[in-house]
Amino acid sequence: MGQRTSCTGSRGKLMSACNARDLSALFNPQSVAVLGASNDESKYGNWLSVQALRMDGHRTVHLVNRRGESVLGQPTLRSLSELTDPVDLVVITVPSHGFEEAVDDALSAGATAIVGVTAGFAELGTQGRELQERIVSQVRAKGAVLVGPNCLGVLDTTTNLTLASNPLPAGRVALLSQSGNMALELSSFLAERGQGFSRFVSLGNQADLGVADLIKDCAAHEGTDLIAVYCEDFGDGRAFVDAAAQAARAGKPVILLTVGGSEASQRGAMSHTGSLTSDTAVIDAACDAAGVYRVASPRALADAAATLLSFGAVDATNVGVIADGGGHAGVGADVLSAHGLSVPEFPAPLSEALKNQLPPSAAVSNPVDLAGAGEQDITSFATVLETVLSSDCIDAVLISGYFGGYGDYGDHLGQAEIETARQITRIVARHGKPVVVHTMRSTSAAAQVLADGQVPVFAAIEDAAASLAVLHHTRPVRPLAVLPATAECPVQATEYWDARELLRQAGVTFPQARLVGNNTDAAAAAGEIGYPVALKAMGLLHKSDSGGVALNLASETELINAMTRMDSALHPPGYCVEAMADLAEGVELIVGVQIDPRFGPVAMVGLGGIYTEVLADVAFALAPVDAPTARALLEKLRAAALLYGVRGRPAVDLDQAASTIAAITELAAAHPEIAELEVNPLLVTPTRALGLDARVVLA
Amino acid sequence: MGQRTSCTGSRGKLMSACNARDLSALFNPQSVAVLGASNDESKYGNWLSVQALRMDGHRTVHLVNRRGESVLGQPTLRSLSELTDPVDLVVITVPSHGFEEAVDDALSAGATAIVGVTAGFAELGTQGRELQERIVSQVRAKGAVLVGPNCLGVLDTTTNLTLASNPLPAGRVALLSQSGNMALELSSFLAERGQGFSRFVSLGNQADLGVADLIKDCAAHEGTDLIAVYCEDFGDGRAFVDAAAQAARAGKPVILLTVGGSEASQRGAMSHTGSLTSDTAVIDAACDAAGVYRVASPRALADAAATLLSFGAVDATNVGVIADGGGHAGVGADVLSAHGLSVPEFPAPLSEALKNQLPPSAAVSNPVDLAGAGEQDITSFATVLETVLSSDCIDAVLISGYFGGYGDYGDHLGQAEIETARQITRIVARHGKPVVVHTMRSTSAAAQVLADGQVPVFAAIEDAAASLAVLHHTRPVRPLAVLPATAECPVQATEYWDARELLRQAGVTFPQARLVGNNTDAAAAAGEIGYPVALKAMGLLHKSDSGGVALNLASETELINAMTRMDSALHPPGYCVEAMADLAEGVELIVGVQIDPRFGPVAMVGLGGIYTEVLADVAFALAPVDAPTARALLEKLRAAALLYGVRGRPAVDLDQAASTIAAITELAAAHPEIAELEVNPLLVTPTRALGLDARVVLA
Repeated sequence: MGQRTSCTGSRGKLMSACNARDLSALFNPQSVAVLGASNDESKYGNWLSVQALRMDGHRTVHLVNRRGESVLGQPTLRSLSELTDPVDLVVITVPSHGFEEAVDDALSAGATAIVGVTAGFAELGTQGRELQERIVSQVRAKGAVLVGPNCLGVLDTTTNLTLASNPLPAGRVALLSQSGNMALELSSFLAERGQGFSRFVSLGNQADLGVADLIKDCAAHEGTDLIAVYCEDFGDGRAFVDAAAQAARAGKPVILLTVGGSEASQRGAMSHTGSLTSDTAVIDAACDAAGVYRVASPRALADAAATLLSFGAVDATNVGVIADGGGHAGVGADVLSAHGLSVPEFPAPLSEALKNQLPPSAAVSNPVDLAGAGEQDITSFATVLETVLSSDCIDAVLISGYFGGYGDYGDHLGQAEIETARQITRIVARHGKPVVVHTMRSTSAAAQVLADGQVPVFAAIEDAAASLAVLHHTRPVRPLAVLPATAECPVQATEYWDARELLRQAGVTFPQARLVGNNTDAAAAAGEIGYPVALKAMGLLHKSDSGGVALNLASETELINAMTRMDSALHPPGYCVEAMADLAEGVELIVGVQIDPRFGPVAMVGLGGIYTEVLADVAFALAPVDAPTARALLEKLRAAALLYGVRGRPAVDLDQAASTIAAITELAAAHPEIAELEVNPLLVTPTRALGLDARVVLA
Repeated sequence: MGQRTSCTGSRGKLMSACNARDLSALFNPQSVAVLGASNDESKYGNWLSVQALRMDGHRTVHLVNRRGESVLGQPTLRSLSELTDPVDLVVITVPSHGFEEAVDDALSAGATAIVGVTAGFAELGTQGRELQERIVSQVRAKGAVLVGPNCLGVLDTTTNLTLASNPLPAGRVALLSQSGNMALELSSFLAERGQGFSRFVSLGNQADLGVADLIKDCAAHEGTDLIAVYCEDFGDGRAFVDAAAQAARAGKPVILLTVGGSEASQRGAMSHTGSLTSDTAVIDAACDAAGVYRVASPRALADAAATLLSFGAVDATNVGVIADGGGHAGVGADVLSAHGLSVPEFPAPLSEALKNQLPPSAAVSNPVDLAGAGEQDITSFATVLETVLSSDCIDAVLISGYFGGYGDYGDHLGQAEIETARQITRIVARHGKPVVVHTMRSTSAAAQVLADGQVPVFAAIEDAAASLAVLHHTRPVRPLAVLPATAECPVQATEYWDARELLRQAGVTFPQARLVGNNTDAAAAAGEIGYPVALKAMGLLHKSDSGGVALNLASETELINAMTRMDSALHPPGYCVEAMADLAEGVELIVGVQIDPRFGPVAMVGLGGIYTEVLADVAFALAPVDAPTARALLEKLRAAALLYGVRGRPAVDLDQAASTIAAITELAAAHPEIAELEVNPLLVTPTRALGLDARVVLA
């Protein structure tokens, strides 16, 4: 049997995914050269030179200008060939027609890391892609690495590397972005929230180094606590998942912003980086597998980062709300609930304790409304927080309203507010539970004390709620489902009967059936199986739609009549006679596996029958899935209650359903030649799981 | 027949809802008095006095202080009785024990408007509620009006009335809020977006004047263009709907922020204002009926207001995206789609036109990625916008990315950017289509030019998208469904047979049926109806669950056996024998009408059978609904496709379904004594709509 690794992509992708590559020359070079250094302030070659010169003293910096003009008052080289010592890292900002030669020069000068700022390659179409691939081959042949092309540069504040167009504050976030403007916006939002950067890499076209390589390197980087990613093309999707899961296990959460949630953005990404995007459900499945936090906007990414950096990847399910007004108490409870969090009624002893701390008009059962207690005694916020956090029933707290603004009413109150803020940070640190604060005065001194004390502060209540919701969606990173060895014999036949046999041998149960060629054999088969039977014509792509299926045939006469009709209408090469299953005794599921070009085989489980297309109630996971994961997928369905038994119907056998689903996904994953494998319906009853139809489509 | 009006509430609510009350003394008094004027800077009596004195000169202002101390350097009265001339408006900030006496004094002094800032009434429980009601009776007996109590004051910038704790900038928004802190936050967010205020009313406990009264008055107020509401208790909900619909028809959109979207916030509201909230689905139904824009947070309210003020209540369904980077193009398309908007592929001629305007790497099919065109020529933003807005296929545009920040790269580019911003405002004004801008530099000069030119600017892309989505959800304000005259004979009997007869007479079709008492009659009835039949035992609350229903009885033997079993187990007073309907020929619906304490009868339509409880796929509307509205409700169901026919099933008769639903809601609305009326299932087939069960619950 051929061993498969997680590398399903092209040869190049395979290389990048399987070996963690040495990126020390990229992030901590001894010497750096900027090709295309310029005095023209509208050019990257100028901005990068400005930043590069800031490193002078830490490391050797060479500016290269074709005409040998002095740049920014510094002497330049006309060419790298003038260097006698090798250079570690070369940044190339020359026009696109000179890029290939520049890469050659860099490699000749001994560079083991190249940053390609120059644009005009794969993003322009086939020709640019071919040129780009040729350049990557040269880079790899020399054992070097390339960031970009079409990127904005690289920055590492832990090594004082400043090779991006703008400086960024130092901190604990590694930002990897495939879009220039998106990188700028993400940096701004993160910086506004007091977050600084360990590293910033503009991914560009990911011609050589892809997001997976960089995540892997940042996961092992001591100065990085959290990895923020904007990415459109995941390259080898399984390598991305591996790398992100590795980061999560190392305690470095990965937050992902991506596109592809709409047909329009898929169109756009295709035209932006000329690259394949994956369906958003597939990306969600990949995030689930890897424990990646997925967000929908730059601001949401920054908010999630703030909360994750403060509290780590802990869960927040049951949230207490503390507000100094009924309006914020109510809106807070609503936005938390809308984000899928629970705002449970407090247990009686907790409400009782709060009642003793608060005025009679206060609400004490969650949400808490201080009802003036804050105005009377600002330390109420801390007292109430302490009481609520002490409850085992509460995982996290949202404080909302005016706290942070009481200082407006005078210095004395302002000082007391700041002291209370300090007290709050101590309480939060002691309990170790996530606490976020929404305040109408988010830039006040008290708000700053909270933020400095690792209590994230938000100007809008929904942002505070969303950042807690991110924590709620933490998933344990299970050992990743590994693609099984490729089956020795690839599947070639795709007829219904063949698909059925393939699945049967993989462990899926089907009703008793016989393949027959004529009336006599059919009658004999039915007699053996027992009426009623189903009759299915072979050799048809859509046998149901074309009249090639007859169900509930109760007698030999009905069977032969049906066969006669199909004979004359469809002339099939043969028939399958099979035992009828009673649909009324169970629930119909659809189970399928499809190949995603980035993430490989992806399993889909949903409600079958007409509800598949009407409700689209389906759940996805990277294949193969084991039985517990299959069961979890079933339990994620909106209509999962149908499986547990409703209105007097018995519960179905979830274990049988789960192990059958697992077997189907394992089979598909072992056969990369299968583009699509489907059992629809899979009838699950209180006692069994029974495939009633099967379909195989080859790649 | 007794005529019913829209006033379903208490006598007090009836008064407030039916007559538009004269609020001229509230919003434009000639003379004002502040009771409880104080020098203590921590007291409302101080803040309000400061604000009141700002009106001196415009109108007479009296400060009243029990001890007659001079306040803020002004002489005070010890009591209103010292006045010789009548006073129009009195603001009361005295402690709660003195409030009733203060109201008496105000009424005696001739006040026709009172603003009760004092707290400590209905929000504290029954005793406070009784006192509050007594005070309201006194106010109404004198023909005066009362705002509050437990409110923050009133402000009208069109009459220079400044009787709130803080001043607010003048503008076109009337803000009505039932929460103090929420009012502060809403004011801040609106002011940050350059919105000013025509009026601000802190609703407080709405003891006398309710939100409906104030909406009605603001709808007729010349200085108001938009009404923003934060409200927990809608009082007479139908009056709220009437008032809001009236405002919408007058071209003054109403935006509503409320609570009750979660069990927790319902708990909270009950404890905050001691008042009833309505289910969030019912509030949505009310907003649908009235054309009210509902938002979930203060920031969302301010964003929606900015866009509505610029463009009015126009629709935005098909949105063009213009970005100066692929990332923002993609994220923009995704967030718009997530908000239910469409980002359609451009027609070929439009893409062709854009191709001619942009560099080869640009994306031109929606979303548009300028791909460097902005950097090369900043006017590209205006040129492309003009091209896109000229298409009939595009209703609105989102511009996203760096526009507004190009000025960072030098004064020359900054000036060009400002000129382009001016050009954009002219293009937007000429086309009259909504255009919103997300920019990473929302405080720049160019961004200010846009905002000043009625092009709303957002710092976060999802906020820009959400504000367009608000426009998309504009609904035409239909003539409001009026409650029908109360039926002459109230319903008294609630047995299955009675409910069935009641509905049958109202126009609902049921299978042929006979009420029988013994085997002989049953057999005769079944013979007449034709087998198979259903047998239902009378006199049981839950006949299905207790074994009182037998279906598909195919012969007299089966019928008599079933009846014998029920006789011995249930001893029912009688039976209904009815024709069996074939569930397989159609789709089961559930149709119900329930009384909401605030909004009266509310219709619910959904998928019936086990799917009601599993999927909760239901839609709501204020009852009664006419047939077109009923049809629209059916089409709103997630599983509506089932009704149109899927996978070879025929479409059901939607007209029959709609007229049956309309009849059921009309019946319920004419019988206020019915708390709950339900037909479940209502079987709809390609040819008919057939009630298979019926239930009436009296109030």
